[in-house]
Amino acid sequence: MEPLGIGLIGCGTVGQGVAQVLLQKGERLSARAGRPLELRRIVVRDIRKPRGALDPSIAASLYTSDVGQVLRDPAIRVAVELVGGVDTARRMVLDCLAAGKDVVTANKALLATHGPEIFDAARRHGRAVAFEASVGGGIPIISALTQGLAANQITSLQGILNGTCNFILTSMSEEGTSYDQALAEAKQHGYAEADPTLDVDGTDAAQKLAILAQIAFGVGVPVSTIGHRGIASLDKLDIRYSSELGYTIRLLAEAWLRDQRLALHVSPVLLRHQAPLALVRGPYNAVHVVGDVVGDTLYYGQGAGQMPTASAVIADIVDMAIGRAQRTFQTMRLWSANGADIVLLPSTAVRSRYYLRVMVADQPGVLAEIAHLLAEYKISIASVIQHEALTEHVGDIVPLVIMTHTASAGDFQTALQKIDRLSCVGASSVYYPVAD
Amino acid sequence: MEPLGIGLIGCGTVGQGVAQVLLQKGERLSARAGRPLELRRIVVRDIRKPRGALDPSIAASLYTSDVGQVLRDPAIRVAVELVGGVDTARRMVLDCLAAGKDVVTANKALLATHGPEIFDAARRHGRAVAFEASVGGGIPIISALTQGLAANQITSLQGILNGTCNFILTSMSEEGTSYDQALAEAKQHGYAEADPTLDVDGTDAAQKLAILAQIAFGVGVPVSTIGHRGIASLDKLDIRYSSELGYTIRLLAEAWLRDQRLALHVSPVLLRHQAPLALVRGPYNAVHVVGDVVGDTLYYGQGAGQMPTASAVIADIVDMAIGRAQRTFQTMRLWSANGADIVLLPSTAVRSRYYLRVMVADQPGVLAEIAHLLAEYKISIASVIQHEALTEHVGDIVPLVIMTHTASAGDFQTALQKIDRLSCVGASSVYYPVAD
Repeated sequence: MEPLGIGLIGCGTVGQGVAQVLLQKGERLSARAGRPLELRRIVVRDIRKPRGALDPSIAASLYTSDVGQVLRDPAIRVAVELVGGVDTARRMVLDCLAAGKDVVTANKALLATHGPEIFDAARRHGRAVAFEASVGGGIPIISALTQGLAANQITSLQGILNGTCNFILTSMSEEGTSYDQALAEAKQHGYAEADPTLDVDGTDAAQKLAILAQIAFGVGVPVSTIGHRGIASLDKLDIRYSSELGYTIRLLAEAWLRDQRLALHVSPVLLRHQAPLALVRGPYNAVHVVGDVVGDTLYYGQGAGQMPTASAVIADIVDMAIGRAQRTFQTMRLWSANGADIVLLPSTAVRSRYYLRVMVADQPGVLAEIAHLLAEYKISIASVIQHEALTEHVGDIVPLVIMTHTASAGDFQTALQKIDRLSCVGASSVYYPVAD
Repeated sequence: MEPLGIGLIGCGTVGQGVAQVLLQKGERLSARAGRPLELRRIVVRDIRKPRGALDPSIAASLYTSDVGQVLRDPAIRVAVELVGGVDTARRMVLDCLAAGKDVVTANKALLATHGPEIFDAARRHGRAVAFEASVGGGIPIISALTQGLAANQITSLQGILNGTCNFILTSMSEEGTSYDQALAEAKQHGYAEADPTLDVDGTDAAQKLAILAQIAFGVGVPVSTIGHRGIASLDKLDIRYSSELGYTIRLLAEAWLRDQRLALHVSPVLLRHQAPLALVRGPYNAVHVVGDVVGDTLYYGQGAGQMPTASAVIADIVDMAIGRAQRTFQTMRLWSANGADIVLLPSTAVRSRYYLRVMVADQPGVLAEIAHLLAEYKISIASVIQHEALTEHVGDIVPLVIMTHTASAGDFQTALQKIDRLSCVGASSVYYPVAD
């Protein structure tokens, strides 16, 4: 069969991994794809810059700084966008679609922000977009949702979707390090970028959740509407108290569908020590998916990194070569109106149990005042631990840790604002949802 | 688009689940498949037998005891084989393929035994066979291997593939029950059949391993060549000692590829308490897959039962409706000669550490004798625990528990035969592999 011509746009870490596999594993890939996969062009900004993972003698002839070399080559049927960022990537993807190329991308920020425009353009030009690598790195979670679970209405999704955060949380809980120490360690290991803001503040996980929600529920969720809290202000004190109570803290992206109403958020969440997601350590990702036919399933693997991400990109290229990706894309109608009957709830509607730490004056009547305020919002208390003062310097301010029964985030936050105004409360309270 | 006509052959537990979803979730499935899925016939032996899960008024018009009603109906494009067993199923599948139907099957025994014949017939007739439900119930493990991990050479597979055994082992380790008690409990819960022989002796797991090996390594492995040990003779004593040493026992189906040589077996294996597969409890299944590009990944869910299995069957039907399954089948060339360069090793070549329990006379020199015999086969001892006599009645026979370093199964078994012939050894020794 005729080779499938490929143009690679962007050759950073993941791009070099993809090029390396395409160039070195040709025989394997051609058996899997039923035809040779021919890497014809690699578009880079500076063609002279050394790219360590690639053999210069092989790759040099492929480099170009002109994306037109991809757009105008009729033998290139698939463009692989790995430039990252949003604006340049958007323009290049739209140009490739207009030029009749199918597109493979790993760019979650692009899809979460411009998904509707890109998918509409693809449909208009009769092209397909595949994006397995955009969520969960090497884990085939997109194909599990689009194909493997096609019989199901997904009823809930819970994911550890950010390896940087999971590495930091694992260090903090297993080694008792502070957030700053754990972040420094993550940078040393290459698990955190120089500027980790979008990872640690939950934005990256929210973008990935928006993509999963689109596939699982057919709903276009603007990232800006997903309530998200990160881990940068997480105190190791709360990791310790959670652990005493039998819980591990993980940054989760969660979505629940009930009576055609969808609630979602990104937040540090307390999980029982033995819960499957609590056992996901270091830079790994995992997604727990519940469907109304299959019950619960879980998918686990490396959520980022050069080769795991390359594995997912190449799976998409093979799917394009075989013609499956095109059929999937045509049938799915993503970011179209297919989820119109599902109502998107605000993040304040998310219901869960809560872990609450209040720093209180060690004096009579304090617990009564706080319990009273919680009761006003119909939040009942499941258990209470009052710890002794941490150090002599704190004086008579002690941590009071409360586990509540189920409440809505909105009610809980309102009650909390009132609690924080009590004269017996010495600092802003800290709270996290607790998974069932 | 034109509806996809479906003929269901067999309407037991899983068949009723499939029919129920097809009949009740028509709108959902038609959106997913891009066309309506029309159940046109249900072939059963006795059309009058009540089938609880199905509305009699809807289903009655579909029942027939004549498979010819499926074969001769040109509107039926997909036949779903759920009769189970091997001989009748084989004949019906071959007849359906000859009649121009694509086939979806959940029948691992059929594929493990007659895979080459069935896949050759499908290729000869230009038809496709899909079999997601044959391994791992609702877990989309087949599509993960065929599509999601297409970039990879799989280097190892470890699976909990039999829910009956996993339920029994979970009960034995968590509740301290005996094998017989746990089996009785499994039957009560519907997790074990009236005759559980093929589950508990490891045959079922070996059949599923043969299918996974075909997909992952392109090698046709006759089930009879897979060394398999079951759990029927497992003593709760060994579960207790393993646990003291920090290990949980699970029945694993395992395969390793190294230097183009493939070793596989089914056996109870000791896993560290915190290993992902050790945490799989009750009737759940999980498969741990390592690929040379993606690293390690894991897939988890319910491995059997009406609706999880129906979920996988329907995913295959949707794939047929979209035309993906046909493309996958044509490209994969399963059970053809594509794995010819991989050498199949005998099960005695499997290398691992071992847990060994020897019942010995409590007298001087015993450990020296056993250690000497192990050393003769270059098996070194990692740790030893000599427990005190269990009861006064056992007299002076005490359990000696040895953990070895890595050895081949063949060497280990030979050494063990000699150990069991020592005069100081009071009963047949018990041994299990230990995962790294």
